[in-house]
Amino acid sequence: MPRVLVVGGVAAGMSAASQVRRRKPDWEVVVLERGPHVSYGACGLPYNIADPRRSVEDLVVLTAEEARRTRGITVRAGHEVTALETASRTLRVRDLADCRDHELTYDALVLATGASPVRPEIPGLDLPGVFFLRDLRDGAAVKAHLAAARPGRAVVVGGGYVGLEMAEAFAARGLSVTVLEKLDQLAPGHAPEIARLVRAELAAKGVTVHTGASVLAVEGRSFADDARDGDRLRVQADVGVFPAGLVLVSVGVRPNVALARAAGLAIGETGAVAVDASMRTSAPAVFAAGDCAEALHLVTGRPAWIPLGTTANKQGKVAGANAAGGSESFGGIVGTAVFRVFELEVGRTGLCPAGARRAGLDAVAVASTHRSRGHAFPGGSEVTTVLVVERGTGRLLGAQVAGREGVKGRVDVLATALLARMTLEQVEGLDLAYAPPLAPVHDPILIAASVARKALSRG
Amino acid sequence: MPRVLVVGGVAAGMSAASQVRRRKPDWEVVVLERGPHVSYGACGLPYNIADPRRSVEDLVVLTAEEARRTRGITVRAGHEVTALETASRTLRVRDLADCRDHELTYDALVLATGASPVRPEIPGLDLPGVFFLRDLRDGAAVKAHLAAARPGRAVVVGGGYVGLEMAEAFAARGLSVTVLEKLDQLAPGHAPEIARLVRAELAAKGVTVHTGASVLAVEGRSFADDARDGDRLRVQADVGVFPAGLVLVSVGVRPNVALARAAGLAIGETGAVAVDASMRTSAPAVFAAGDCAEALHLVTGRPAWIPLGTTANKQGKVAGANAAGGSESFGGIVGTAVFRVFELEVGRTGLCPAGARRAGLDAVAVASTHRSRGHAFPGGSEVTTVLVVERGTGRLLGAQVAGREGVKGRVDVLATALLARMTLEQVEGLDLAYAPPLAPVHDPILIAASVARKALSRG
Repeated sequence: MPRVLVVGGVAAGMSAASQVRRRKPDWEVVVLERGPHVSYGACGLPYNIADPRRSVEDLVVLTAEEARRTRGITVRAGHEVTALETASRTLRVRDLADCRDHELTYDALVLATGASPVRPEIPGLDLPGVFFLRDLRDGAAVKAHLAAARPGRAVVVGGGYVGLEMAEAFAARGLSVTVLEKLDQLAPGHAPEIARLVRAELAAKGVTVHTGASVLAVEGRSFADDARDGDRLRVQADVGVFPAGLVLVSVGVRPNVALARAAGLAIGETGAVAVDASMRTSAPAVFAAGDCAEALHLVTGRPAWIPLGTTANKQGKVAGANAAGGSESFGGIVGTAVFRVFELEVGRTGLCPAGARRAGLDAVAVASTHRSRGHAFPGGSEVTTVLVVERGTGRLLGAQVAGREGVKGRVDVLATALLARMTLEQVEGLDLAYAPPLAPVHDPILIAASVARKALSRG
Repeated sequence: MPRVLVVGGVAAGMSAASQVRRRKPDWEVVVLERGPHVSYGACGLPYNIADPRRSVEDLVVLTAEEARRTRGITVRAGHEVTALETASRTLRVRDLADCRDHELTYDALVLATGASPVRPEIPGLDLPGVFFLRDLRDGAAVKAHLAAARPGRAVVVGGGYVGLEMAEAFAARGLSVTVLEKLDQLAPGHAPEIARLVRAELAAKGVTVHTGASVLAVEGRSFADDARDGDRLRVQADVGVFPAGLVLVSVGVRPNVALARAAGLAIGETGAVAVDASMRTSAPAVFAAGDCAEALHLVTGRPAWIPLGTTANKQGKVAGANAAGGSESFGGIVGTAVFRVFELEVGRTGLCPAGARRAGLDAVAVASTHRSRGHAFPGGSEVTTVLVVERGTGRLLGAQVAGREGVKGRVDVLATALLARMTLEQVEGLDLAYAPPLAPVHDPILIAASVARKALSRG
């Protein structure tokens, strides 16, 4: 009976295993997961942390036991894969419970090892009260610390979307929150017009923000000394010293490719595992999917690494299907993502101007702001749209949208337009829905396209 | 100095006039409007009627005086155009203030005569307390009646989206509301799965609904007898007798083409004025735009008549540009629309199964229901998606979406996919945004595409 092994049991890994099972009811499917949990929605962590009544286990979609019982998938949590030998199709696996190693052979292998938080070279990041956010255990540790140490102040290092969502979560828990971002704006990769809205939203909600702020060290005594004295840490930065009872470091993630690299698999320019559209790696019968793998970017036509849960699930499904002998392919990505911080929703798709330049495209970004609802309809707000357009052709290359309602829908429309390789003129001609409570008669997307077209025609 | 005349001063007409002015600052631009108001958002009427503190004048975007002062457009409200002679390029115009006629010649003419409510052949529709909803005057009359007669019960005849929005408005004003719809479902043209949701929403909000209900007559005494006794009407229907103090009849609209027809302009199969992509009619120098005109339907490739404010504004702009000597064209429509009734949002785009059949397409509709937010994120609801797909090719032909959040965005994505002539497989591969508060990791659209693809492959 053929055996498919899956390394990593979160989004891509569980999607792959389920797909194998669906296609080959009699094959053996084993998922090896280093952590104690499988199949959870890590993106929900900030919202879970915001609510002390919820357990992080709420985020588990399917337990190991349920996976076995309902899907016939063997899940070995607490099993770390330490080596892969592609010639003999063998994995070396360590049971973390007893630290004993064993070997497993496979007929097909899916690597879904995910990504891990970047650990910057800053002294003091091992202190109690300093956290990274990778998996449910980290979330549980943050919640336990909030409950036990009762910190009054939190410092979030990193102003990307995870850092911002965590800033909101800490504010919801009643902490005073400071965000320190090394770059000169929050939400790096977003247009300055959008970043300003993010900053204003944080300010309005009482979160202190320092951009262009480098953290030099975290100092403090052990919390074990006196668990009730909350704010025992000090974050030393070039812009000041910030006392804190909790420090969350969120300065980006890197693909987990050590296993693949050691096994000699091709690693792409992006640093993630190189794959083709069938999710095959450079080694026979070895597939990779999710945050450890690259994806074809449909705007540049080149491999990209944009780790997102949506892509992980889709790639996992394709990898699983093909590991089971299928012939599916993953169409690629345009890098569509959205986050919410307090009441502001921020979405993006495709390239930012810097990304377009890196791809050798002559791009211009045009921002415009319009109302979210119909004329005279009460309660509307403003929607800011940034369109990134190729000069000359007028082709849409990317977009960013921020506002208090309807952002995801608008960024999704622009993502669909990107996939269809539409020009600004085609975007301006889109037939979008109108009703006074939900949009103005001229949708902000259409006005943004018109404004951008005029800006381009002026040069 | 060339003169452009525009007949009709609401969405299409004012867009056309503004466009002429922008392109030809020294031309004469005259808008002739039968009613007292120009440039208003008629779609906002139900929401305005719901709020006794607001005046219907709130819905005016630009008054005649503002149009003159800020845009240099002459607006003659209260002027009805009674005849068009294309050979001599002459309009016969009646000033409704003094009933005197005069003639005006034009170098270019834009017909933007709009649409009017269908008046069914039912006795008693002229009684006081019975209303149709066409323009701001009708809205003001309804509000005046609500204030003066203080009706306790309203009957809405017609369960299309205007009827439903008005049912909500009357409920908001504290009336007991009954909706009578002749067909066997509310929201005609929508899938039965969607219509059931609409009906459930009305029931949950205390609105009584009868479908398959023909109104035979409206009876009553004059309100002048006793303005304080609210419910003086009786609606006789085949399903019962319904006392009411207010009856709103909303059983569809027809294009206002009498002027065009009498002038010998070509009228299309749909009953609206035939136009080409430049919005030219069959007569030289005569353009038509908005609710009186046809539009190219991009799914069928044939002319359609789907009167919507969005289309009116776009067509008006193209008609105006070309009346001013430009060479713009209107790309066409896919018939995207959305409405909200109480807390339910309902959107549609493209063809329904019956429309596909009429267009000679072999279509199937597949409905599916999914969550609106991420796993374990609180407060989500359900989104129902109906995809209409061509058998064999798998091409998307239309879609309907209903739910409590995110409906407009999803219907807009599907409208964009229709314009790009995407197949179900391409829709399933769309890269849509995910964040737990705003969507599940598998967007309802993507799951709906997957479900429909499986249904189709089973035949």
